[in-house]
Amino acid sequence: MRSHYCGDVNESLIEQTVKVAGWMHRRRDHGGVIFIDLRDREGLVQIVCNPEDAESFAVAEKVRSEYVLQIEGVVNPRPAGSENTDLKSGKIEIIAKRVTILNSSETPPFPLTEQAEVNEDIRLRHRYIDLRRPEMLQKLRFRSQIIRQLRQYLDNHGFMDIETPILTKATPEGARDYLVPSRTHPGDFFALPQSPQLFKQLLMVAGMDRYYQVVRCFRDEDLRADRQPEFTQLDIETSFVEEEDLMQLMEEMIRDLFANVLEQPLPNPFPRMTYADAMDRYGSDKPDLRIPLELVDVSDLMQGVDFKVFSAPANDENGRVAALRLPGGNSLSRKEIDDYTKFVSIYGAKGLAYIKVNDLAAGREGLQSPILKFLPDNVVDAILQRTAAETGDLVFFGADKASVVNESLGALRVKIGHDLDMVEHGWRPLWVVEFPMFEWDDKTQRWYALHHPFTAPRESDIDLLSNDPGKCLSRAYDMVLNGTELGGGSIRIHKTDVQQKVFEMLGIPAEEAEEKFGFLLQALKYGCPPHGGLAFGLDRLAMLMTGSASIRDVMAFPKTQSAACLLTNAPSHVSDEQLKELNIRLRRVPTA
Amino acid sequence: MRSHYCGDVNESLIEQTVKVAGWMHRRRDHGGVIFIDLRDREGLVQIVCNPEDAESFAVAEKVRSEYVLQIEGVVNPRPAGSENTDLKSGKIEIIAKRVTILNSSETPPFPLTEQAEVNEDIRLRHRYIDLRRPEMLQKLRFRSQIIRQLRQYLDNHGFMDIETPILTKATPEGARDYLVPSRTHPGDFFALPQSPQLFKQLLMVAGMDRYYQVVRCFRDEDLRADRQPEFTQLDIETSFVEEEDLMQLMEEMIRDLFANVLEQPLPNPFPRMTYADAMDRYGSDKPDLRIPLELVDVSDLMQGVDFKVFSAPANDENGRVAALRLPGGNSLSRKEIDDYTKFVSIYGAKGLAYIKVNDLAAGREGLQSPILKFLPDNVVDAILQRTAAETGDLVFFGADKASVVNESLGALRVKIGHDLDMVEHGWRPLWVVEFPMFEWDDKTQRWYALHHPFTAPRESDIDLLSNDPGKCLSRAYDMVLNGTELGGGSIRIHKTDVQQKVFEMLGIPAEEAEEKFGFLLQALKYGCPPHGGLAFGLDRLAMLMTGSASIRDVMAFPKTQSAACLLTNAPSHVSDEQLKELNIRLRRVPTA
Repeated sequence: MRSHYCGDVNESLIEQTVKVAGWMHRRRDHGGVIFIDLRDREGLVQIVCNPEDAESFAVAEKVRSEYVLQIEGVVNPRPAGSENTDLKSGKIEIIAKRVTILNSSETPPFPLTEQAEVNEDIRLRHRYIDLRRPEMLQKLRFRSQIIRQLRQYLDNHGFMDIETPILTKATPEGARDYLVPSRTHPGDFFALPQSPQLFKQLLMVAGMDRYYQVVRCFRDEDLRADRQPEFTQLDIETSFVEEEDLMQLMEEMIRDLFANVLEQPLPNPFPRMTYADAMDRYGSDKPDLRIPLELVDVSDLMQGVDFKVFSAPANDENGRVAALRLPGGNSLSRKEIDDYTKFVSIYGAKGLAYIKVNDLAAGREGLQSPILKFLPDNVVDAILQRTAAETGDLVFFGADKASVVNESLGALRVKIGHDLDMVEHGWRPLWVVEFPMFEWDDKTQRWYALHHPFTAPRESDIDLLSNDPGKCLSRAYDMVLNGTELGGGSIRIHKTDVQQKVFEMLGIPAEEAEEKFGFLLQALKYGCPPHGGLAFGLDRLAMLMTGSASIRDVMAFPKTQSAACLLTNAPSHVSDEQLKELNIRLRRVPTA
Repeated sequence: MRSHYCGDVNESLIEQTVKVAGWMHRRRDHGGVIFIDLRDREGLVQIVCNPEDAESFAVAEKVRSEYVLQIEGVVNPRPAGSENTDLKSGKIEIIAKRVTILNSSETPPFPLTEQAEVNEDIRLRHRYIDLRRPEMLQKLRFRSQIIRQLRQYLDNHGFMDIETPILTKATPEGARDYLVPSRTHPGDFFALPQSPQLFKQLLMVAGMDRYYQVVRCFRDEDLRADRQPEFTQLDIETSFVEEEDLMQLMEEMIRDLFANVLEQPLPNPFPRMTYADAMDRYGSDKPDLRIPLELVDVSDLMQGVDFKVFSAPANDENGRVAALRLPGGNSLSRKEIDDYTKFVSIYGAKGLAYIKVNDLAAGREGLQSPILKFLPDNVVDAILQRTAAETGDLVFFGADKASVVNESLGALRVKIGHDLDMVEHGWRPLWVVEFPMFEWDDKTQRWYALHHPFTAPRESDIDLLSNDPGKCLSRAYDMVLNGTELGGGSIRIHKTDVQQKVFEMLGIPAEEAEEKFGFLLQALKYGCPPHGGLAFGLDRLAMLMTGSASIRDVMAFPKTQSAACLLTNAPSHVSDEQLKELNIRLRRVPTA
């Protein structure tokens, strides 16, 4: 139905007859002639309909926005001075010989030709129109290229693409599983996988050696800013490897991706940082290294001060006092400081102490701070020295449980970085390593796995598993890019006794472990090789690489924050007949 | 942890030290020396443990079947006469210098070294061991190559790989949907897609132009011989195309696949056959052309005979009388004919009349048949002539509703073809075209879509849509290979009024159409381009190409015929707590 894409018609085709098809993007009537910008996936081309060609002119007169047209015509150079250098086809135009309307269109609910801010709900409801916008099309195309490139790398490195089930068994974090009632097994349910973790480990037991899959995963959780109920993971697992093998392979893959798709180099090797160091200096296990601000621990300096707000956490083994120096920050207004104080309160901080350094040489006189009176000279001096404060700076303080200080100052660091335009350009990847195996939860009074319960402890820490679990480090690693976790993985447990010990530490009774993970424990007994892997969040990666504000922009048909599809109206009501077949009924009739 | 795969160690490495890792496949103690066949994904290599090397010999003595070992040693040529030409590594052996047990193994539930027939339930329960068998590993690897090759073709032809939702809206054939209760929208349900049909059409409305996806689909149906509740489709859609464009592109893709992956050529072009012709000659819309038997219509000959069994269907416009000549078939025993009579009864045939041609030259005397007495000479002569019967042949007859005759004789044709070893070697692809739009169902007294309700009618048949729907042909096409439907597709309806008319013909009330497909009807109004596509069943394709008996053999973790996973025990019980969160409860407590 066409000889060329619109965007591909160029000066090499001059004087030739071409056939193009696409959407009426823009129409101008000028001097009795109709000019149509015809649009397809590859771009725009200008069509000229002259009144001398009465038949096609008559058709062109009927054409409205977003009509679907087929046009046959001859490629001509544009008159001198009317070239459009913004277009690939900008040096030519097509003189229409035949114009056919393939389909009409009602007036679109929002214009495609302007950069108008359109409400996202309307965009999602008419996603088929929203995706016509060139920038949306380019994002999906780019995503497709990213995945192709990653596949190519893995294909070339001996990985097998193997599919694992979507209808599967409820997982440990079962509370967030989507469940699917079974018709053939009344009363029983499948669960949609939060990840194919156990299946990929079983593939290693089966000797597949190198596995990957671009796989849909599901999590039924309250949707925070940028989560989707279904998301896509690049899932990888390999046998007979150690951390070093995997990390090298994976960072090479990502470097290769950025070099080929974005033509932007990433550092070689990626820097590495321990979890402890990351928390200490950035208050986060996924620090954005583009922001040149760091937390500085001052707990030791505060242990002896009279000011309880500081001395109490400084003397608590779970507490922390940390400082964040902001170069040039003494120009912050009262209002700005109040706003930041409000901001850190979101993370549980009860306040945001600060010292403004108006004149370092002037000693105490040169400082301005509500807390100055609580701190002796030697402590103030030590703080200024340790934070390397200079005249014109401001030093913020956080003092609380370590988790509150880290979260609040970590978030403040990022916010200020953006507010004050301090974010450096470029890509700053990073490996975070030496994670703890477990995290203690005060509320439930139990240990939780920081990654997941199949993560191996360091060989040298196996004794700590039962003796001092909080000190036990794991063989996990996270790849972080510009403050976003791109992927995470670990060397896995490959021995039954270690796996059982970890379940025990997590308070999973032996029977429950058997019921939920019996097949894994069984598999480990039949010659499971040492193995490890990684999973990357592809939506997030595509979002970062396309410079999008939301993962919704790199998904063709995303759901809203309340996990609904505005386009199809899913989820929706189903008949009682259907529920009967599935042996379920509703608990209460929905009000709406 | 290794320098080479076991299967890759060969004579080019002689005298070098290598490190390999894998599973203890076989062990022989011979003349005080221990020989171990070590196995990994790439094959076997022979390890020699000499008693002089006391330390590694001591370790080797402990090794049992399926232990996971790491071995460092020196590559030696095998002593003359002991080469194994079946192995890639058969000219060498590794003299072990260090043997490390990476993991032990209990005795596997079934042996991997023998071709023993193992019960499939046991294989599925221990799939991680079953997949270690070299033939299973090769099947998964081959499947991975098939998909890679198809992707490559599509990538190189301008197709974009775009993901569509898994959590979506219930489809027309809703009775077979898997449903997923929504936690955020109590009382509402998502459905898992039976195919991404509507989403891919919306992508065409959005101007993506060429889309593909390797996508999981779901159907909750009673599992026949070779169905799975979840299956994988290669889903394709393109804009501004007609049948011819698509069929050429698709058969080129499949030819390319067979040439590259199997190194076997397929015909160019694929032959084509109308649906009417396929039913007439093979009683099937997916005829296996490797079987050199054909149905011959004899309805017209039977209209005047006294024998009601034949004359009634011959005079019924929905009836049919057909013959199937079996060359050399007069040697079939009474018992064999009885068995075939029983076989066709599965398909509703009330009997299986036949004529044995013992001596064609001898006229009636040379024929043997229980029905001969009912047929006049001229009819018998005409039958023999039309079926081209010769001495030694047998002619079967089917007389009933056309659907019963086609199904029963079609199935008989295939069965006899296999029983009598008449199946020709090689690949016989075929396009079946000119399908009817609708099929009338006597039971429910309504029309059903032969493909799906989004299939376009032929332009010239649009008037028949309402006037004579049974005569209206569609723009659908199926790709058939050796009697299996590989893929099916069509040009789609791209105009609202035609789509509404088809819904009407299918007896879908306007409100229901609006509720279920409103978003599609809406989208068609905003400039939908002409478009069409295809979907291939990848499991089936992989099954055919690997010569497997079941699609379960080309899936890593298949489910049983009752849609259960024997490995993980899914589906399974979930807590009432979880059901409460989803606003559902069980109707009756399961008995088991």
